[in-house]
Amino acid sequence: MNELELLRRIQRKTPAPGPGVLLGIGDDCAIFRPEGASEDLLFTTDMMIEEVHFRRDMHAADSVGWKALARGLSDIAAMGGEPRFCLLSLALAPWADQRWIDGFYRGFLRLARRTGTTLAGGDLARAERVACDVAVCGTVPPGQALRRDGAQAGDGVYVSGRLGGAALGLATRRGAAWTKHCRPEPRLEFGRLLRGRATAAIDLSDGLSLDLHRLCLASGVAAVLDEAIPVFPGATLEQALHGGEDYELLFTARAEVEGAVRIGTICPGRHGRVYFQGKPLAPLGYDHFR
Amino acid sequence: MNELELLRRIQRKTPAPGPGVLLGIGDDCAIFRPEGASEDLLFTTDMMIEEVHFRRDMHAADSVGWKALARGLSDIAAMGGEPRFCLLSLALAPWADQRWIDGFYRGFLRLARRTGTTLAGGDLARAERVACDVAVCGTVPPGQALRRDGAQAGDGVYVSGRLGGAALGLATRRGAAWTKHCRPEPRLEFGRLLRGRATAAIDLSDGLSLDLHRLCLASGVAAVLDEAIPVFPGATLEQALHGGEDYELLFTARAEVEGAVRIGTICPGRHGRVYFQGKPLAPLGYDHFR
Repeated sequence: MNELELLRRIQRKTPAPGPGVLLGIGDDCAIFRPEGASEDLLFTTDMMIEEVHFRRDMHAADSVGWKALARGLSDIAAMGGEPRFCLLSLALAPWADQRWIDGFYRGFLRLARRTGTTLAGGDLARAERVACDVAVCGTVPPGQALRRDGAQAGDGVYVSGRLGGAALGLATRRGAAWTKHCRPEPRLEFGRLLRGRATAAIDLSDGLSLDLHRLCLASGVAAVLDEAIPVFPGATLEQALHGGEDYELLFTARAEVEGAVRIGTICPGRHGRVYFQGKPLAPLGYDHFR
Repeated sequence: MNELELLRRIQRKTPAPGPGVLLGIGDDCAIFRPEGASEDLLFTTDMMIEEVHFRRDMHAADSVGWKALARGLSDIAAMGGEPRFCLLSLALAPWADQRWIDGFYRGFLRLARRTGTTLAGGDLARAERVACDVAVCGTVPPGQALRRDGAQAGDGVYVSGRLGGAALGLATRRGAAWTKHCRPEPRLEFGRLLRGRATAAIDLSDGLSLDLHRLCLASGVAAVLDEAIPVFPGATLEQALHGGEDYELLFTARAEVEGAVRIGTICPGRHGRVYFQGKPLAPLGYDHFR
């Protein structure tokens, strides 16, 4: 069973959302509208686990803290939101000394400050491995959140930047690609710009092939990618197509959006299918359950 | 460094809350007031980690799922809130097969349904150990959330039920005490009843001695416990004073509250100090970092 299948199984068992919950399981964020509020709230949560999402001997403490928050902020960006606050659950392993903990919080709080995200609470525990989970809340004008399910045949497919940088960084641990891997910049400003322009959006956390597959599946459409995909300097086409953790935005729109690169077109067809160079492109991006 | 010291260190590093965040780190929940909203929002997050909070050979999958949600709901209860939705991050170990996963969700969703809590999203991963983190959002009328910091000298100290049941259950694995340990019932209805009546409240997750210490510390007061503490049938006084996971509510009030048992009185004195049988009571409850 892969992640998508497990998710579907959970969705089937889950009752319909209660009052105020406008969007439940299945998008980058859930949407909640409090009574009387003049803003919709976005919620997302993301884990970072030692030996799964990071390695103690490879990733500096402050980059682990930064990235733990960046992952959720990228989900807020993909929905066009503005981050407001977050909760941090942190389980500390015996090896994580005061210096490591201080480094983790330094990286976490630097990104929090820069993006206006208040650290408002959390949970602490001891465990065998370091693990954390960050829940982020963002706001968006009522009804203006970007979703995965609005793409229509004829829409252009766009990305906010070059792809494959994080995968290249993980392979080489050098230069701008390594920085991209360790300290991804969530595209918050760009996401807000897409309100009212993008028909659907998702953040590129698990690779173009898999995330575009997800967007198309949610929208009930297919997509054809152009020959020219914007590749991060030094990265391979393979890394650009399937590499995870770029945290760029992938979206669909009827008209050009300044600052974005068009990479394809939405078309009718088997839901979720993505074509590249005349053939179906396998959704090979990162899946924990494969 | 114990948990309280680590928490203080984090608090010192954390900038002042941004707009809308009425209460940040340090209580059972954070409080957020969205623009224009006619309700305040409460947020809490709690981890459940294999070999730390539960054991695979001791706890049934559905009780792990139930308790993972119950812990956060108890925080919502302690603030007088009504649960609305939650996010579930779940890391699955190789040993957790489809049957275990189904059992986990069965227990989780049973309590969710019973309390009107929508499962609105989350995150999935593979890891060496099963670990989950549940963020819960609840609502409360504006300004009516119960907090830890309002206790004043002369207030009575109360609990919502008998103590030590969960500790007894963990020791004996039998009867009503074992049920109390495995499937705690968050005191949501009772918590809502305390709005406008309790001067301070906290949920008993880590033991009376430690949680009363925390409430008194937050309020800048001390407390004297009566000789007679309501002990769960079969439990020892030691279990009632220091045993964790009862998930009853501990609160202070100026007048009696029906259904609660008075166990002491708030007094001036060294902040956080609790007296029992004429002597200071050590805060021996559960602390991950001791």
